[in-house]
Order: sequence, then C-alpha cells, then structure tokens
Amino acid sequence: MVARNKQVRQQELTALIETEPFLTDEELAERFAVSVQTIRLDRLSLGIPELRERIKAVANNNYGKVRSLELTEVIGELIELDLNHLAISILEIGPEHVFTRTKIARGHHLFAQANSLAVSVIDAEVVLTGTADVRFTRQVKLGERLISKAVVADNREDRACVDVATKVGDDIVFEGQFVVFKNK
Amino acid sequence: MVARNKQVRQQELTALIETEPFLTDEELAERFAVSVQTIRLDRLSLGIPELRERIKAVANNNYGKVRSLELTEVIGELIELDLNHLAISILEIGPEHVFTRTKIARGHHLFAQANSLAVSVIDAEVVLTGTADVRFTRQVKLGERLISKAVVADNREDRACVDVATKVGDDIVFEGQFVVFKNK
Repeated sequence: MVARNKQVRQQELTALIETEPFLTDEELAERFAVSVQTIRLDRLSLGIPELRERIKAVANNNYGKVRSLELTEVIGELIELDLNHLAISILEIGPEHVFTRTKIARGHHLFAQANSLAVSVIDAEVVLTGTADVRFTRQVKLGERLISKAVVADNREDRACVDVATKVGDDIVFEGQFVVFKNK
Repeated sequence: MVARNKQVRQQELTALIETEPFLTDEELAERFAVSVQTIRLDRLSLGIPELRERIKAVANNNYGKVRSLELTEVIGELIELDLNHLAISILEIGPEHVFTRTKIARGHHLFAQANSLAVSVIDAEVVLTGTADVRFTRQVKLGERLISKAVVADNREDRACVDVATKVGDDIVFEGQFVVFKNK
C-alpha cells in the first residue's frame, strides 16, 4: 500500500508543480501531509529541480523581454512579464536585506523590488520613476519570500501609473503606486 | 605679491572650510578663482584633509548618537544629527548606484538614503517605516553628491512624521514624507 501511495503522490506532485511551480518544499509537504524529506526524495526521483532552480528557469525566459532594464537590474526574480500589463517577481529575504538587531527586512529593499518591477513592466527603452506612494503594511522577517505583482493602471505616451502589491503567503506586506516617465 | 596672495588665500581657505566643511575642491577653486590643483596644494600645505576624509570625520562623531540603526546601516555619511529634530547625510553616487545604460542613479538608492535618515533621526531603539510619499524631481547622474536633510515634523509617542529633501547643489532632486513607527 505504501508503494501505491507513493506512486499516486508522485503523480499528484508532478501535476501540482506544473500548475503551481513556486510552492516551497515545506508547502508541498503540508499539502501531501508528508515530511519535507519525503518531498525532497520525491523531487529527486522525479527529476524536479529545487524551488530556486525552478524560479530561475522561469525568470531567465522573462529577462529577454524586459526593455527598460538590464538583466541584473531587476531586483528579485522576474517570474512573469506581460509588457505594459503585468509583471510578477519573487525576492527571498536574506541576511543582506535585514536590520542586524531585529532581523526585520529594511524598507528600501521592498521598495527596490517594487520599483524595479514597475519599471520593467513598461515597454520603453528608458523608464524613470517620478513619484511613489508606498505603504509598509506588515514586518517582513529574514527567510520570508516576497511575491510582488505590478499592474499597469494607466498607460500614456509619456508616462504610466503602475500599482504594485507585495505579499508573503496571503499577507500583503507592501503596497505602492508608482508614476513612471518614459524618456525619449 | 603672489606670495602675499597665497598667504591671504590660505588663511581665507582655512576659515571657509571651518564654516563650510563640505565644499569640494572644485567649489573651493571657483570661490578663490584659482585652479583645483592650487587648492589641493593649499590643503596639503595647510594639513586640511580631502573632502571624503572631512565628511568621514564628522560622520564618525554622529554615528554614536544614532539609537535606531547600527553604524553600517545608515545609507550615506551622517554629517549632522540632532535626535528627534534634524539629520543630514551625504551620499556620493558611484557606479553601483546607476543604471548601466544611462548612468542615471536608480530611485531606490535615493529612497534608501532618505529612509535611513528618517529612521536614524528618531530617538528610539526600534523604528520602522510605515508609509512614504516620495517624488523624484530631477535625474541624478554618476558622480553627483546628494545632500539629504530630514526634519521631524510631528513626533508622537508611537510614531513620527519626517520630511526629507535631497539636493544636488541647489537643485532639489528628491522629496519625501515618511511616517515611521516606534516599536516597543
């Protein structure tokens, strides 16, 4: 019976990662009510790369589409990009992003992820930030994974308004409205 | 006459740097209508350190006063700090701060200087940014020197409102209003 369970789980795991490629091993373990170690062994035997590699693979496909920034200038991994409409990036909070004492992420890193996303979503060679109106709605801790989504709200010839929301799991941690200018 | 001029100039130079310690050699050369090389030789013979060293010397005196941040967490050099009232920092835009293609400073570095200044001016152990309303009013280029000034506009038990303005020479390049929270 164990072997049968395993086979079913591995089929379901493959299908799940296909539809939701950015689940962590911890989240997958919870979904299947097994240990993280079991998930890792499943991934190994199925040849499914670890999350970081899955993100990078998707991101690499998107960087070619960005017009306004160089590859290394996007803060976070760009996992979705539909120029002039929508962009999504993932940023994992490492020790370089947090205050030494509190291990809380510094605001300017959340700002940088959102701002570079608001710029990269625009289909123009040179895009510069004009104004930003931002709210930090909950503290972000070391090791948390920020998923930031930028939506182009208003797009004119010389400027665009981009709404960005950043989440950790289901919690919104940052919201911002950016007005960006397209330089000729 | 040349020797006499030189003596007068060197006396005036010493006095000027005493009152305005953050003038560049280029600005000093302009004030005295001499070459930058002459100013450098004057400084050398008078034992006046170069601008970078003068800034660092002043900044080192201020870091000890900051309560909310570690020394290395202030973005830029803190040249003035009057807790709960006013703080000033200087940030020189280097290659690490600009877009590769345009050599224009990236917005999040201006944001980071202003945000860390708004936090360091507050007299509390833990200070976190709540909201920020910012405007980038002119492009900043590689090599420009940002002087950022934070003024505490409203200071309550649990939060404060801090106005920050950043200039390059006489031009305002960034303005921001930050609401920061004091954590118990």
